[in-house]
Amino acid sequence: MSTYHPLSEAQAIEYARQIPNLFQAGSDLTSHEIGDGNLNLVFHISETATGKSIILKQALPYAKVVGESWPLTLDRARIESEALLIEESLNPDLVPHVYAYDADLALTVMEDLSDHVIMRRGLIERNQYPLFAEHIGRFLANTLFFTSDLGKNQQEKKIQQGRFINPELCKITEDLIFDDPYRDAETNNIEANIRDAAEQLWADSELHFEVAILRNKFLTSAQALLHGDLHTGSIFIKPDSTKVIDPEFAYYGPMGFDIGAVLANLLLNYAAQEGWSKDTQSRASYRAYLLQTVKYVWTHFETNFRTLWNEHCVDRVFQAPGYQDHFLANLLQDTVGFAGAKMVRRIVGLAHVADIDKIEDAAARERAQRLALAIGTSFIRTNRQVKSIDELIAIATQESAEERGFVL
Amino acid sequence: MSTYHPLSEAQAIEYARQIPNLFQAGSDLTSHEIGDGNLNLVFHISETATGKSIILKQALPYAKVVGESWPLTLDRARIESEALLIEESLNPDLVPHVYAYDADLALTVMEDLSDHVIMRRGLIERNQYPLFAEHIGRFLANTLFFTSDLGKNQQEKKIQQGRFINPELCKITEDLIFDDPYRDAETNNIEANIRDAAEQLWADSELHFEVAILRNKFLTSAQALLHGDLHTGSIFIKPDSTKVIDPEFAYYGPMGFDIGAVLANLLLNYAAQEGWSKDTQSRASYRAYLLQTVKYVWTHFETNFRTLWNEHCVDRVFQAPGYQDHFLANLLQDTVGFAGAKMVRRIVGLAHVADIDKIEDAAARERAQRLALAIGTSFIRTNRQVKSIDELIAIATQESAEERGFVL
Repeated sequence: MSTYHPLSEAQAIEYARQIPNLFQAGSDLTSHEIGDGNLNLVFHISETATGKSIILKQALPYAKVVGESWPLTLDRARIESEALLIEESLNPDLVPHVYAYDADLALTVMEDLSDHVIMRRGLIERNQYPLFAEHIGRFLANTLFFTSDLGKNQQEKKIQQGRFINPELCKITEDLIFDDPYRDAETNNIEANIRDAAEQLWADSELHFEVAILRNKFLTSAQALLHGDLHTGSIFIKPDSTKVIDPEFAYYGPMGFDIGAVLANLLLNYAAQEGWSKDTQSRASYRAYLLQTVKYVWTHFETNFRTLWNEHCVDRVFQAPGYQDHFLANLLQDTVGFAGAKMVRRIVGLAHVADIDKIEDAAARERAQRLALAIGTSFIRTNRQVKSIDELIAIATQESAEERGFVL
Repeated sequence: MSTYHPLSEAQAIEYARQIPNLFQAGSDLTSHEIGDGNLNLVFHISETATGKSIILKQALPYAKVVGESWPLTLDRARIESEALLIEESLNPDLVPHVYAYDADLALTVMEDLSDHVIMRRGLIERNQYPLFAEHIGRFLANTLFFTSDLGKNQQEKKIQQGRFINPELCKITEDLIFDDPYRDAETNNIEANIRDAAEQLWADSELHFEVAILRNKFLTSAQALLHGDLHTGSIFIKPDSTKVIDPEFAYYGPMGFDIGAVLANLLLNYAAQEGWSKDTQSRASYRAYLLQTVKYVWTHFETNFRTLWNEHCVDRVFQAPGYQDHFLANLLQDTVGFAGAKMVRRIVGLAHVADIDKIEDAAARERAQRLALAIGTSFIRTNRQVKSIDELIAIATQESAEERGFVL
């Protein structure tokens, strides 16, 4: 047992060397810390002779966001590692392989995915990933189904839920997504140009009512083991491969929160096309791809999830006629509501997305922000009435038409 | 540290003697085991000189119900003891005081309530308890509010939730309340006379749909620390005092489950009046008392709960206009649904209630069973539409009028 200390690049090599069956004895290894240093150290360690490489990720005992620093539990490394192992057992091709986990050092040694790119960057570069919807739909269906009372022994599920009590990281979400954007909070990060829109959010008590319902679901609805932070920055991608990473926010929560996170981040990029598309036609074409992807993520998820339910449901009572449809109708509504909350917070809350923030033209950036806010608030407002994924697409399309004065 | 072994009466005395500040040194103590031996040993220990007495309750490592025996975790003694301490801290006058808890021996030493009677017996004897509704309404409001995300620090709530993961005792509820009554299960206990009504239950897919929704809430809705088994056999009572006992089923679940349990058991006694009331007028009068109590339990709960919310809510977002009303409207509906499920299971499920089973006249007993089933199934069927406690009362009244051919 070692006591916790942040590793140096040299110590990371030492540590990697002692993992069985990874590198050849005595081979030359190089190590580079490639993390952003906000939450974790991330060492890229590779073997000169073979080119073989791994990632060693070590949690830091604090979080730094926009200059602020606050203490943060190292237990999140355990949660991340255990969540990855569960996800891998259900979707071997869709998460990095975990070679080792060390509780004392709060570190995880995992597959190197340097041949992938972070999906957010891929979308900013306006790449298309035709397999993504199938991959993430399957990931969501398998993970959410088999960790829930539908697909997992219900007593084991409760014990597993106890291992994923994650108060500190849940609090970040509770504050930054389900509270601060709806008041004049110090943590908010609002561009001066759209302050009027933020002030509208703060005064909109109908919206606050819906946010309260969503917040309550996040706090109390222990449906399944969530990733908890499934935005496009938590996904490594290349045309033929999708890998979900960084589940340190994992906890038992409402399924729609994870699905909504994926859709929200596709739609944030959709809004960001105000600043990235060279011309109207090219913009329309990439937006059509994004909306199609939004739709396919849901339909792949739903198809997979229904098949799992029909073939592997552990619960006799949940096979009651009509109940599966009822469950999925509610899940779509939750998905829409959470997607809306995820979009709003990325415009007025603490943490933004590069898709929009990196737009250099201030007017285009403002249009993108206003469009994202319009879609997000519309999702929140209507979530409990939505009946199909096409309605969600229609809202996004309609808001962009209204904002921009013409129909796509 | 002692290893676990079931205590004898003499050992129970020895154990009690060493608890500080309880009995006088060297005084004469007597001990009688007064439990039914199904789940726990219950020793009544009293000091001859002073008459002072306590209860020593020790969990047995098995459960015996109707001759069957299956292993059961001793951890339920910890859960019961910790739940009692939390309930006592919130309602000092409404639960027995805990003098000591011993994890190794799975035992709790608590206040002797021999001057009270089990409420179920009190109701069978047709006593009235005019303070009960105020007491239990306050107990429910305090306990459910201050253990929930409304009244407790939301990070501490998650940690507490982790301490009340209670898979084995939850499974008893999941099977006996939310599954077996709705199929021809071996565990069911159905009198031959009402087999036709049981078979109707098994064939009623609309009912199964609503039961699936209730079951899902029981499995996933971690609103508050429930008692988990709050029937009138878990309540000690006398005219000026109400004490809630036996929270070994405690876990984080939907608030309406506890409230519904109280209402269901009042209404089971209401149905049982078919067999206990000497004449029509006397029956109508006791039934009116029971219905009034049902109403007052809810209204006292609601009034207390809203006051706590207005004065002690820890959550800014939950103060959104309209959200409190929305929450309580949903909670009433959950309460109605769970009350219905609780009534049905006491007629066709494994464990019945003495209120009805002890009726000697078979025809009257059958009428009581059919009435309880009619009210219970009607509650389940309509729970998601109910808008006021008066509607619930109206359903009970109407079902009894239909069953008995006249209006009360």
